Amino acid sequence: MILLTRRAEWSASHYYWVDSWSEAQNRERFGKCANRNGHGHNYVLDVTVRGNVDPQTGFVVDLKWLKDVLEREVIAVFDHRHLNLEVPEFRTLMPTTENIAIAIWRRLADKVSPAATLHQVRVYETPDLFADYYGEA
Amino acid sequence: MILLTRRAEWSASHYYWVDSWSEAQNRERFGKCANRNGHGHNYVLDVTVRGNVDPQTGFVVDLKWLKDVLEREVIAVFDHRHLNLEVPEFRTLMPTTENIAIAIWRRLADKVSPAATLHQVRVYETPDLFADYYGEA
Amino acid sequence: MILLTRRAEWSASHYYWVDSWSEAQNRERFGKCANRNGHGHNYVLDVTVRGNVDPQTGFVVDLKWLKDVLEREVIAVFDHRHLNLEVPEFRTLMPTTENIAIAIWRRLADKVSPAATLHQVRVYETPDLFADYYGEA
Amino acid sequence: MILLTRRAEWSASHYYWVDSWSEAQNRERFGKCANRNGHGHNYVLDVTVRGNVDPQTGFVVDLKWLKDVLEREVIAVFDHRHLNLEVPEFRTLMPTTENIAIAIWRRLADKVSPAATLHQVRVYETPDLFADYYGEA
Amino acid sequence: MILLTRRAEWSASHYYWVDSWSEAQNRERFGKCANRNGHGHNYVLDVTVRGNVDPQTGFVVDLKWLKDVLEREVIAVFDHRHLNLEVPEFRTLMPTTENIAIAIWRRLADKVSPAATLHQVRVYETPDLFADYYGEA
Amino acid sequence: MILLTRRAEWSASHYYWVDSWSEAQNRERFGKCANRNGHGHNYVLDVTVRGNVDPQTGFVVDLKWLKDVLEREVIAVFDHRHLNLEVPEFRTLMPTTENIAIAIWRRLADKVSPAATLHQVRVYETPDLFADYYGEA
Repeated sequence: MILLTRRAEWSASHYYWVDSWSEAQNRERFGKCANRNGHGHNYVLDVTVRGNVDPQTGFVVDLKWLKDVLEREVIAVFDHRHLNLEVPEFRTLMPTTENIAIAIWRRLADKVSPAATLHQVRVYETPDLFADYYGEA
Repeated sequence: MILLTRRAEWSASHYYWVDSWSEAQNRERFGKCANRNGHGHNYVLDVTVRGNVDPQTGFVVDLKWLKDVLEREVIAVFDHRHLNLEVPEFRTLMPTTENIAIAIWRRLADKVSPAATLHQVRVYETPDLFADYYGEA
Repeated sequence: MILLTRRAEWSASHYYWVDSWSEAQNRERFGKCANRNGHGHNYVLDVTVRGNVDPQTGFVVDLKWLKDVLEREVIAVFDHRHLNLEVPEFRTLMPTTENIAIAIWRRLADKVSPAATLHQVRVYETPDLFADYYGEA
Repeated sequence: MILLTRRAEWSASHYYWVDSWSEAQNRERFGKCANRNGHGHNYVLDVTVRGNVDPQTGFVVDLKWLKDVLEREVIAVFDHRHLNLEVPEFRTLMPTTENIAIAIWRRLADKVSPAATLHQVRVYETPDLFADYYGEA
Repeated sequence: MILLTRRAEWSASHYYWVDSWSEAQNRERFGKCANRNGHGHNYVLDVTVRGNVDPQTGFVVDLKWLKDVLEREVIAVFDHRHLNLEVPEFRTLMPTTENIAIAIWRRLADKVSPAATLHQVRVYETPDLFADYYGEA
Repeated sequence: MILLTRRAEWSASHYYWVDSWSEAQNRERFGKCANRNGHGHNYVLDVTVRGNVDPQTGFVVDLKWLKDVLEREVIAVFDHRHLNLEVPEFRTLMPTTENIAIAIWRRLADKVSPAATLHQVRVYETPDLFADYYGEA
């Protein structure tokens, strides 16, 4: 088994807010992240696929193809967007690092198959905070 | 002459938009940055002061004091904010990397004096784009 | 399963020395690290917890709480300290990268539970050397 | 179980080309990488071993010894070389990131044993692309 | 005066060789870099322009335009190339970090003008080695 | 004028303490850095020389020679040492980032001449704090 990881980046806004909570509750729980004007990050995405090495090309997947999949399925949707307002998954889900990793997994799992198998999605919100998702059990 | 540089970070939203232009003009000039829902970045700030080394302490400035000045004058104002909507300078100025560097210079120049002299303000919007400002003339 | 990783840093001194060995033996085995005046590093710690995403907040754990746990249980004890002389675990154990990772695991495993499960402790002594610990068994 | 990872770097040239394909096929499949004059990278290697911590020294493996093994078995062979022309494995295999990781695994697995067990080989071709190999099933 | 810096990257091969020297002389002077099969690097380029901030847009230069200039004048010429064999400047000049910085300056100085003034070209051959050029006199 | 910068690293211990002050004064002024057991850092050094490019070799200075000078004059003296106790300059001077940069300048200025001229010494104590020294007036 060999794993191949491709990194991509996007910049976006978000905020944390639970509608059924008061402003005070949101402020207490989310601190500065509850500012509804939004704030933003340079997100970094590491997408890892696993598979077999093609004996002729030496590739698990075609790198240009993988880059295009990430561009079309993730970057074109997330980049320079307000995640809460413009990315469908986050109309109802909080755009935390955890949920962003899960959302990207769901966007990519079918798209990288059958060329390869999606193995891991890592999302960095900052260099000091990241989430990893490996799919449902 | 010795220079001392302290790094700090904040996360914020912004967008680029000239009110007197049409949506099409804004889109053509600013591309994805014209999205008025905003997008955001992990900004990195390098503040450089110059001065003489205190012969007893070996410091140009007290580091804890410098950190507190940056925290109070910049980070508390910019972090987890929407720059266009919440930071006074950018109600009328575009929050470009260039203008952010100039705004931070103006916020800090008097505050680090007379302990030291503000020498340079560098602002990274992403690791691939940064502006340096050295003050007027 | 989702994993969330938070990074923290500290600066500390250490040295490597086995009391029952001669100076020559220590020098031969540990090289420059056997200097009993000590030397030091900017250590980097990545603490990974796993758990379920809270459907309301989108968090595996509250980030501020996790940061406070790391600060209280690790950084307050290790930062600006001489590991051999001031951190209890290393009175008898060598403060190698491996043993530091194990010591931090033992300090944190109960503290992050039951909110989440400690999954991995990674300690970088330098950018070129790091240890990972996943607990016993 | 504890894992220890040591990083090393080398610089080398390579190109991608399948002899049984036409120039047009190679260009279509490999793009700029099919340039037979070669291009190059600063490769980064993370070698991870697992084992038990020696109770006296606190080490899984002697770090100087591990560094010497990497230097002798990998860096001396790959550094400042044209991978296709000068490294035996790549006379017949394409020097992709995947195949380089596998080749390094095969060079190292016996050499780090029995002191420790080779656990993972990670090779970065650029900061945005890397492969991980864990050996044959 | 405000400076704006844009980063770009390319990967290329090169070697060091003085035709009028013997192989032994070349080996002695250039070490592993004298291998005529070539080796390569992930080069990093920081191009800095200076100018005035446009009061309406807040830009010194249009970023998309600057990126396109770098792409057309530098990256398209240098990326995935063998510098000695394929980039005209290095048919007769050694492709050292110093000479690459000077060559890029000469390619860009007229092209960024009159929108802005080229201020600095920095080229990293590796993270540990870089050259800065500020033009003649 | 062309500048060439070479990076080097070392690890060392230090502490801040003014003998003529009380423990309380030292603690108040230097905080955790006043711990006389010492703490440490992975220091990063960027040494910049300026000169003319040799028309034959394309070098400002021979890189191997520059690396050897840094190794002999700085790294061999500072690495794995307690700066206050083992490096002569810091028997009487505080080993602050500022004073370390000045000390390195004085160690190197004559040694890189006349091959080149020492232009700048930058010392990072952490990635967030660095000092630059350009010599006396």
